[in-house]
Amino acid sequence: MNAPKTDRYPMPDLADLPEDIRTQILAVQEKSGFVPNVFLKLARRPDEFRAFFAYHDALMLRESALTKGEKEMIVVATSGANQCLYCVVAHGAILRIYEKNPLVADQVATNYRKADISPRKRAILDFAMKVATESHALDDADFAALHAHGFTDEDIWDIGAITAMFALSNRMANLAGMMPNPEFYLLGRLPREKKAG
Amino acid sequence: MNAPKTDRYPMPDLADLPEDIRTQILAVQEKSGFVPNVFLKLARRPDEFRAFFAYHDALMLRESALTKGEKEMIVVATSGANQCLYCVVAHGAILRIYEKNPLVADQVATNYRKADISPRKRAILDFAMKVATESHALDDADFAALHAHGFTDEDIWDIGAITAMFALSNRMANLAGMMPNPEFYLLGRLPREKKAG
Amino acid sequence: MNAPKTDRYPMPDLADLPEDIRTQILAVQEKSGFVPNVFLKLARRPDEFRAFFAYHDALMLRESALTKGEKEMIVVATSGANQCLYCVVAHGAILRIYEKNPLVADQVATNYRKADISPRKRAILDFAMKVATESHALDDADFAALHAHGFTDEDIWDIGAITAMFALSNRMANLAGMMPNPEFYLLGRLPREKKAG
Amino acid sequence: MNAPKTDRYPMPDLADLPEDIRTQILAVQEKSGFVPNVFLKLARRPDEFRAFFAYHDALMLRESALTKGEKEMIVVATSGANQCLYCVVAHGAILRIYEKNPLVADQVATNYRKADISPRKRAILDFAMKVATESHALDDADFAALHAHGFTDEDIWDIGAITAMFALSNRMANLAGMMPNPEFYLLGRLPREKKAG
Amino acid sequence: MNAPKTDRYPMPDLADLPEDIRTQILAVQEKSGFVPNVFLKLARRPDEFRAFFAYHDALMLRESALTKGEKEMIVVATSGANQCLYCVVAHGAILRIYEKNPLVADQVATNYRKADISPRKRAILDFAMKVATESHALDDADFAALHAHGFTDEDIWDIGAITAMFALSNRMANLAGMMPNPEFYLLGRLPREKKAG
Amino acid sequence: MNAPKTDRYPMPDLADLPEDIRTQILAVQEKSGFVPNVFLKLARRPDEFRAFFAYHDALMLRESALTKGEKEMIVVATSGANQCLYCVVAHGAILRIYEKNPLVADQVATNYRKADISPRKRAILDFAMKVATESHALDDADFAALHAHGFTDEDIWDIGAITAMFALSNRMANLAGMMPNPEFYLLGRLPREKKAG
Repeated sequence: MNAPKTDRYPMPDLADLPEDIRTQILAVQEKSGFVPNVFLKLARRPDEFRAFFAYHDALMLRESALTKGEKEMIVVATSGANQCLYCVVAHGAILRIYEKNPLVADQVATNYRKADISPRKRAILDFAMKVATESHALDDADFAALHAHGFTDEDIWDIGAITAMFALSNRMANLAGMMPNPEFYLLGRLPREKKAG
Repeated sequence: MNAPKTDRYPMPDLADLPEDIRTQILAVQEKSGFVPNVFLKLARRPDEFRAFFAYHDALMLRESALTKGEKEMIVVATSGANQCLYCVVAHGAILRIYEKNPLVADQVATNYRKADISPRKRAILDFAMKVATESHALDDADFAALHAHGFTDEDIWDIGAITAMFALSNRMANLAGMMPNPEFYLLGRLPREKKAG
Repeated sequence: MNAPKTDRYPMPDLADLPEDIRTQILAVQEKSGFVPNVFLKLARRPDEFRAFFAYHDALMLRESALTKGEKEMIVVATSGANQCLYCVVAHGAILRIYEKNPLVADQVATNYRKADISPRKRAILDFAMKVATESHALDDADFAALHAHGFTDEDIWDIGAITAMFALSNRMANLAGMMPNPEFYLLGRLPREKKAG
Repeated sequence: MNAPKTDRYPMPDLADLPEDIRTQILAVQEKSGFVPNVFLKLARRPDEFRAFFAYHDALMLRESALTKGEKEMIVVATSGANQCLYCVVAHGAILRIYEKNPLVADQVATNYRKADISPRKRAILDFAMKVATESHALDDADFAALHAHGFTDEDIWDIGAITAMFALSNRMANLAGMMPNPEFYLLGRLPREKKAG
Repeated sequence: MNAPKTDRYPMPDLADLPEDIRTQILAVQEKSGFVPNVFLKLARRPDEFRAFFAYHDALMLRESALTKGEKEMIVVATSGANQCLYCVVAHGAILRIYEKNPLVADQVATNYRKADISPRKRAILDFAMKVATESHALDDADFAALHAHGFTDEDIWDIGAITAMFALSNRMANLAGMMPNPEFYLLGRLPREKKAG
Repeated sequence: MNAPKTDRYPMPDLADLPEDIRTQILAVQEKSGFVPNVFLKLARRPDEFRAFFAYHDALMLRESALTKGEKEMIVVATSGANQCLYCVVAHGAILRIYEKNPLVADQVATNYRKADISPRKRAILDFAMKVATESHALDDADFAALHAHGFTDEDIWDIGAITAMFALSNRMANLAGMMPNPEFYLLGRLPREKKAG
């Protein structure tokens, strides 16, 4: 099997981590029921860990014209373009939950143009995909297409910055051989009552 | 929403279809519990329908050194490369069932190089991806890589022909705006006992 | 020389083939004066042979708004994009004959944008080339460009399906090392009277 | 039709050209029986005409380890990659004549990897195609592959320089809408005795 | 001119910035003699500013087997591939200074394969360019190529993480229309004594 | 170091060159203060040398609607796209001098879309980049975009032909391992008075 690839950067013991990082990870575990691998993989390097999650939170938790679901949709679509297994599966789960839609993550990850999403969301993803794959060619027409949906330049910064953050994140996951926790694959796919059962 | 795209080629009524096709579709419905959209989309054109499924069955049901799971893995990986939503989701379901592995389809569709699969399966997918994306450049070294895993040229024909069949199928699904049935998204993701519950 | 490449999948003896396939091949030979290699290469696998030609005929012999020449033009242009030597040369010959134009096949195979063809044919090929190379990105504008030339969605299915069929065919030819019969290279290049001479 | 494209840069009258250019063109006409369009298209600009053909002759008429046929093969293969209709058809004719092989030009233009050519010629074309499409990535291994066939660095300069010259030529033909003379399409396809008849 | 592009996200007044950010910027100005535009462009969003520079410093100031010059070389080469004007020019200046080499930045930004650098540096850049452009395809051979130069997996994390950080940075600069300060273009190009004069 | 790459095609002694070439090179040296390496690299082959510079001068010295600066801008932008180190650095110097702008060369070489240039120059470069990278797809709309800026088809020939000439030149420089003279890196970067000092 391909085990060596994922063993190159082993995950540290929680006990060996700095206090602030251990606390943050335990809080995530408390909330989610498991520790997403990205936390343990990055915790090997505490300074990078802190900067990564500070950046992530600055963008993903920020008040914005974008809904939480739209932000995750950007992550899933562009991570699909970057073939980042960890981000597609982990953020796909979050996307399903935020959108209360068990189908949308697979659609957006595979081909966002065929996804059953609103024209507004389609416009967001068109822009994000250009930032992800050819940011050098961004021009006024790309901004105008989002203005037509009522987005301001400040909103567009959100779209572009989330995409840029995951350009980093996708490359780290591919470098580190980060595998999604098995839990992510099923999250958000079942109606709430079944899950409770 | 994007409804127009999926309405361009409406699905016919079962009652209006030729007898042999209606029978085939009812048999699938009996077995699966629903009619996969590919059957109804293609049934609009009976001759093409018959040829399509004859070709599909000639390859997918054929005795081969490839397991059924490996055949579906080829479909899912190359359909991911072609960004074919229908085939990734529908054949992803079948792949999960054949491999009794709820994780493998998402892995292979997103980035087969990071999937948790054997070197043999990795070699199959390397070859299939080359047929899918640059068949003009196939050379002796590509065959040799599969010979090293014990495959004969006849087995390699199977790999290449399945890939070629889905090069057709992916394009038809993208052309026709074929959407996966909602059922496919969840199939094979739950342990069998839960499903029964 | 490169003989090994073409020997990997040897052509069977006519005598060893199933009756229906032998009959079909002899009919082609009777009509064309030779047996195109695609028949013998694929006859190694009778079920795939039957499905392939059933599909081919369902599309190429079907009554359509497309002329026979336009259908072959789709084949030649997209096979050029896929660098499929067999299909460019064999279908180039058929195209020259149908169009009674000794120049058009080389033009369309090399660069359809520079070919001396009508705007209607240019629009057909623009669509076909998108199906061949990036079907995931097909959108309403692509359909509209063909509607502007009077094509219906049903006609567009023909264009897309022929392209999809040869996406399969090109990959099989490249996989199997299929070489065009020498006869094809010259067919349709000479005025009829010279040929008779 | 697409006439405007070819009319943008009209061909001058022979009578209006400088003496040296008219003489050169008449000599070509005498030898070939017609004036290849490249001569008339470029003659609009006498200084560029003179430099173009001086460069062309410096490379194509130079004594070299490459045969005349091999030089033309480089032109046809790389012009195919650049989708240059004029050069594929015009130099395809010359290639057929030099190699006394009516099939090789179509093979090399469509997919040189599948052409029925010697390993030596294959190595020449591998190098030429890299110069044509990604010269920035040339490295020692590319030179070594040709040394293995007995070529010196001076021979490799010939290969690269011919490719570079036609990188220019292909772009000029595409810019100027240069169409091959109809005569070229058939040249070298018939056995000599038939031609005489 | 293209002024609108750079005006979309205006730079804030220093006086309006949070204390910690203003202090940081004034310190940079003190040291460099000017404020690089990246500081003012990003300061519009204090939380993102803080995370960005924390991440940057965690990687660029970290003790490592990579020299400071090698770290900047990664930035310049991958920013060239991403066509990020700001990063090529600004980090090109820093690279020239660290390496005490007025030529290397232009070489590495244009074509690192032709740069006059050691095999060790070439290996670093080969890996970095793969992370930048196709991180999904990273495999064991890419790591082995660096092990051969004595790098550990921990060093390789540095290479990959710096590349990933600038995948983010390049996209932000392209999004925000960030222009390099004029000072950067000349920095490190003159011998120290001339500069003093 | 990478010395072998630049040693493959050693530069000849001036004394061994034909009289006309030696005279031409000495004149350049007289004017520039040094001999640009392209002269010595190409002088190895006198006939190619003469044709190269005749072609170069026919285009670059020709009276034209394009300014000298615009011509060099085409060279720098397309050489950047072709990753040609020699041409980016050497012609970047000339561009800075002609435009009396120490910043423009680095801007145009890295990402012409972000350069601080007029819409007219942007239109020139859009066309040139298409000729450089996909001349097969040139169509009427590309010409119309330049007509809108007052350019005639004859001016457009200039743009296309300069691009085509450097498609050749870039490939020769990459083939021959041509390195820019150190002098070029700094030329045109300093105000004139400093240079005098």
